[in-house]
Amino acid sequence: MRDFTSDHSALALNTATLGHNLDGPGAGWSPERVIDACAARGYGGLVFWRREIGGRAIEIGERVRAAGMQVVGLCRTPYLTGSEAGSADQVTASIDMAAALGAGVLTIVTGGTDPGTKGTGDSRKRLAERVAAHADHAARNGVALALEPLNPMFGGNRTCLFTVREALELCRAIDRPNVGIAVDVYHVWWDSCLSDSLAAASGRILGYHLCDWLEHTSDMLLDRGMMGDGVADLRAIRRDVEGAGYAGLCEVEIFSAQNWWKRPPEQVLDTIVDRFRRFC
Amino acid sequence: MRDFTSDHSALALNTATLGHNLDGPGAGWSPERVIDACAARGYGGLVFWRREIGGRAIEIGERVRAAGMQVVGLCRTPYLTGSEAGSADQVTASIDMAAALGAGVLTIVTGGTDPGTKGTGDSRKRLAERVAAHADHAARNGVALALEPLNPMFGGNRTCLFTVREALELCRAIDRPNVGIAVDVYHVWWDSCLSDSLAAASGRILGYHLCDWLEHTSDMLLDRGMMGDGVADLRAIRRDVEGAGYAGLCEVEIFSAQNWWKRPPEQVLDTIVDRFRRFC
Repeated sequence: MRDFTSDHSALALNTATLGHNLDGPGAGWSPERVIDACAARGYGGLVFWRREIGGRAIEIGERVRAAGMQVVGLCRTPYLTGSEAGSADQVTASIDMAAALGAGVLTIVTGGTDPGTKGTGDSRKRLAERVAAHADHAARNGVALALEPLNPMFGGNRTCLFTVREALELCRAIDRPNVGIAVDVYHVWWDSCLSDSLAAASGRILGYHLCDWLEHTSDMLLDRGMMGDGVADLRAIRRDVEGAGYAGLCEVEIFSAQNWWKRPPEQVLDTIVDRFRRFC
Repeated sequence: MRDFTSDHSALALNTATLGHNLDGPGAGWSPERVIDACAARGYGGLVFWRREIGGRAIEIGERVRAAGMQVVGLCRTPYLTGSEAGSADQVTASIDMAAALGAGVLTIVTGGTDPGTKGTGDSRKRLAERVAAHADHAARNGVALALEPLNPMFGGNRTCLFTVREALELCRAIDRPNVGIAVDVYHVWWDSCLSDSLAAASGRILGYHLCDWLEHTSDMLLDRGMMGDGVADLRAIRRDVEGAGYAGLCEVEIFSAQNWWKRPPEQVLDTIVDRFRRFC
């Protein structure tokens, strides 16, 4: 049992938390600067986005490990379903980038409802076929694929997978040892079946993403809360995630255009450590 | 079996669809003008909001019935949980207004997570107690209470009830014959358990709310789609709702600040009839 009150080596930073999308204080930070800042604070790992890596995957991965941390994951494949789905080659390229980076896990945000269909049933069937078609190449390269269910507000264009239960059903249909589930508090905190679904997903959980759900969420995408500022039961969810056998790091991923992305990255990183110790 | 292709007497208008919140073309329309416009087009009923009724509940209800339509429902009780919960007296007053209007159903949007708690479990327990405390007064006045699960994007401040399954569990806990469920396409279209949940809710469904979920939803609250413009499987959901014994009207409720609320109400009402016949 981890000592939650004093240890934060289980903490990983998803680099989006420092506002890579905006012209705020963190926008100019290179991967190297983020790596050094996290290592100095005792973080256990990092999760990058493809746009930050470019052709430097091997170099950045080695830099993370030289700093004593893990590359926990890479965000993410192109969409696999919906009107904005990427090509099979683009998916393969994202797998290869994860492998070069030494990221054990590549996250899949599925994409939405396939053109010409209604609801999500047809899209989920096609998703299962498409993930299965990429799973062997990923396995040969040491990469696991993590299906991430998203909050139902992202149905239509971003996802056809909304709950851990649905993700688990899809994993079973795909039936490959390197296909599992990413559990993100922002997306699944509300689900009264969550505890049961996580227990059923034992051994399948490949990632745990942390933030908080604010009582008043002003923007679907970019108003995530810092742990402790919202209503999600973070301790209960982590207990269930770890109870289902997840022994990896806790990845903090906060998109916050109006708050945290406007603050100096050093302050954000320090706040995460403090909140992780107190609330997670 | 209804003839879906030619009949629209099953259609009801939720008055919010004409943009009662905005200064658009429909903002100045009185309840009487809405009643006449719906009756002229063969609508079967209307659903009002409390703000439109004021002290004129009896008069407006009689006007609807004189026009050959039903008052299908009233929106809605104050929140029963969360930091913005109304008082018990305010809830009672909304029940009395529904009774005076002759509205058979009063919708409950539950409200969010109760202050000082995390997640939604505690709030749902308190919700069950609070609904039960009002159910007898409602029954004595001929009013049924319809718990409406909302899309999980409304967790935190607006709801602690997200799926038909959760609403059904709460109905069973409350165990009163006049407490049931409102099924709104916008909130539940994504749920892969929906068909099973509706079958299990047989006899408990008190309302069916229609719109569509747009592929790209730009605003959580005010960007609902017109039937046929989105990705929800409207025919399948209606089949399941009616298969579970619901024999009431189909209530069109479209909050659309940037599209339908900017159009003339006559055009919106005509479009609804056309879309209902073709897509629902």
